[in-house]
Amino acid sequence: MTTSNPGTGDVDPAVREELARLRDSIDNIDAAVVHMLAERFKATQQVGHLKARHQLPPADPAREARQIERLRNLAENAKLDPAFAEKFLNFIIAEVIRHHERIADTTSNGATPTAN
Amino acid sequence: MTTSNPGTGDVDPAVREELARLRDSIDNIDAAVVHMLAERFKATQQVGHLKARHQLPPADPAREARQIERLRNLAENAKLDPAFAEKFLNFIIAEVIRHHERIADTTSNGATPTAN
Repeated sequence: MTTSNPGTGDVDPAVREELARLRDSIDNIDAAVVHMLAERFKATQQVGHLKARHQLPPADPAREARQIERLRNLAENAKLDPAFAEKFLNFIIAEVIRHHERIADTTSNGATPTAN
Repeated sequence: MTTSNPGTGDVDPAVREELARLRDSIDNIDAAVVHMLAERFKATQQVGHLKARHQLPPADPAREARQIERLRNLAENAKLDPAFAEKFLNFIIAEVIRHHERIADTTSNGATPTAN
């Protein structure tokens, strides 16, 4: 019995080339996004230190609501699922909180985590 | 009793300004990332259709392992937690699979989800 899912070795070279072209684009985008996220965490680290130093409230629900609303609109215009954009922001914010817990641990005033 | 966490209204204008500056950068980065992700999903949608059309195997574990390894290295160079970069890729791939399930549903050959 032959398989209906051949490995890429059996594939028309034109198809293999098209797949490689798309994957190169995906890899380029991933590299760009990783570098953007590195820059984003630099900024949120600074926010964390600023808030800890000035006893600013760790969470800012109004700011977060504005961020979600804005990203959902941007996503819609870019034809990206707005629900995914919101899920993505929440995923990033969870990591920011993890970073801020580390900042709070090393800050004497015992500030609680801050997300934005 | 006064609170040790005043609202931003009570805050030194210079601090408020610095916070606003950082948040503007965060918002710019988020807009950039949302647009990069929209572009990424355009590419993975094409991969999904290409694979469905040519009965290519939906998953490619070797490709995924290379993606993870590469992103971890990029993250390290950008001073981003490599574990986070890997978590991020898995988060994105989960969404890609969701998209590809939709493609498979509308493709007669009943191809199973494909991630990359």
